[in-house]
Amino acid sequence: MQFDSLDDIRGFCRDLPGGDRRAAEAAAVRQQQLTKPPGSLGRLEELAIWLAHWQRREIPRLDRVTIAVFAGNHGVAARGVSAYPPAVTEQMVANFARGGAAINQIARLAGADLRVVPIELDRPTRNFTVAAAMGADEYLHAVDIGYRSVPPDCDLLAVGEMGIANTTTASVLCAALLGGGAASWAGRGTGVDDAGLSRKRAAIEAALDHHRAILGDPLAVAAAMGGRELAAIAGAILAARRHRIPMLLDGFVATAAVLPLTRLDKSILDHCRAGHVSAESGHRSLLRELGLEPLLDLNMRLGEASGAGVAVLLLRAALACHAGMATFTEAGVSGADK
Amino acid sequence: MQFDSLDDIRGFCRDLPGGDRRAAEAAAVRQQQLTKPPGSLGRLEELAIWLAHWQRREIPRLDRVTIAVFAGNHGVAARGVSAYPPAVTEQMVANFARGGAAINQIARLAGADLRVVPIELDRPTRNFTVAAAMGADEYLHAVDIGYRSVPPDCDLLAVGEMGIANTTTASVLCAALLGGGAASWAGRGTGVDDAGLSRKRAAIEAALDHHRAILGDPLAVAAAMGGRELAAIAGAILAARRHRIPMLLDGFVATAAVLPLTRLDKSILDHCRAGHVSAESGHRSLLRELGLEPLLDLNMRLGEASGAGVAVLLLRAALACHAGMATFTEAGVSGADK
Repeated sequence: MQFDSLDDIRGFCRDLPGGDRRAAEAAAVRQQQLTKPPGSLGRLEELAIWLAHWQRREIPRLDRVTIAVFAGNHGVAARGVSAYPPAVTEQMVANFARGGAAINQIARLAGADLRVVPIELDRPTRNFTVAAAMGADEYLHAVDIGYRSVPPDCDLLAVGEMGIANTTTASVLCAALLGGGAASWAGRGTGVDDAGLSRKRAAIEAALDHHRAILGDPLAVAAAMGGRELAAIAGAILAARRHRIPMLLDGFVATAAVLPLTRLDKSILDHCRAGHVSAESGHRSLLRELGLEPLLDLNMRLGEASGAGVAVLLLRAALACHAGMATFTEAGVSGADK
Repeated sequence: MQFDSLDDIRGFCRDLPGGDRRAAEAAAVRQQQLTKPPGSLGRLEELAIWLAHWQRREIPRLDRVTIAVFAGNHGVAARGVSAYPPAVTEQMVANFARGGAAINQIARLAGADLRVVPIELDRPTRNFTVAAAMGADEYLHAVDIGYRSVPPDCDLLAVGEMGIANTTTASVLCAALLGGGAASWAGRGTGVDDAGLSRKRAAIEAALDHHRAILGDPLAVAAAMGGRELAAIAGAILAARRHRIPMLLDGFVATAAVLPLTRLDKSILDHCRAGHVSAESGHRSLLRELGLEPLLDLNMRLGEASGAGVAVLLLRAALACHAGMATFTEAGVSGADK
């Protein structure tokens, strides 16, 4: 395994790999020379420079884009916190395999390889309102699965998830690590009704109470109050950082999955961008807390990397302009009046 | 010509062609059956239904997408309102022809045909601070060029512009038709400095004063205080409506170009969506005034249909999901608990 203990992860986060500042500077200089008023492509310019920074080349590439979707089941589903039965997690994994889900269509459009990684769906995490969802070994195993899912040579990674009840898990992680209680973080997920939302809030409060002794330890929280697919996303983020692969986060659950790592070192997010802000109520607050500015705001709340997948298209636009445009000199276009 | 007089345009706007409500309803029903929680694709669902409505088919298509960029020159440029010299309009048209501009890269990525339509670049409109920019005949001629630029059989049209000094023109149209004066509508355009911004505001106030007698007549304003490329965009919008082609507006100038028509009948916008909100300061206010919710907010301010072109990618994502996803029944996925 890449990480044999929680301390191994803590150690990695104490000495995070960086990008290449010179490549980023060269890309920024190039942006100033292209036939447009400086800065007029807005975030597309910033994205091109960010890709250059992490890929360590002035003109980055997006030849090999991977979208990884991790799936897990959650003991807390037994508390009636979701609009859908837990069997849907496995049914949707089968739908991914047959190409029928939203992310299949989006990945094809975005020119991305889709990797779907179901993690012990027949062994849900324990109900964290009364027990630890995972022991440290179970958590590390899921982190390792995520870590090994990342192709070391890919140009971009986007991560997402599928898991009935996992917005409850994400809300618990946020409440545990950021405070604010269930009221701040519980939303309607896939569309739970008022009674379900009440059960969801009660489950979150019960979990916070049950685990109050460990709330100061982010990785202990990630194990005891998390989920296997969230742990795998954390593993994927660590692998991407190791290999200096820029990556896109998806919605509320995928962002909550990185939250424990940010408590170790906030700069873990430097190789990440938020693909979108979801309609799930806690996501906007979480992004603000983490200082992430989402690329898209389309009222999506599906998960399965769908928002990050659409954001891949924006990176392609950024790269197309960065790599393909003529400079003022090449095109014989006059610069700004001095 | 399609419109021989301003009254012909007024007549067209009194009896605007509609879409097909039944196709939209069938598309909405389909969205409810696809393997995702209802509504969870957010605006992608709304966009698919909107395309269905105007294309009059339950499953729309985007086989033929046209991006039209109209270019014109402006007498008001002589007042020093832009950071760039007027020669840049023609230089950028040449850059479009050689494939070196941002929109060339974006159009290729979006699978769109790019049509660049320069309109009498050697004959700038008259300086509207002291005269009518165009007479009615000149205006109608530019409208006609725009109208005839739209392929009647295309599946989607995106419109944009190029024209040094034309954010001044756009600001004048907004101030003339919506009030608020130069302070509300003048922004930095391609990046004018403080002195240039002062000259821009002064030009706008001078124009409002010179043309105060016609401010109640939207088409008279469009001729006397507009520009050829803005008139052509209006013509393109009318053609798209005639042929029931859904369309994407670009930034501040392209949106200001449709403003006079909205004063005749606000439902002229029903076949339009705002591709993005630009960083140009007046655009957000103008979109709010027109009830348009932009698809993207990427701090872009380049024009040349670049924002609308990127938004074509979102329509492709919407369509890919709408056309390609399995239904709950097809996939054997359980629905929500009742």
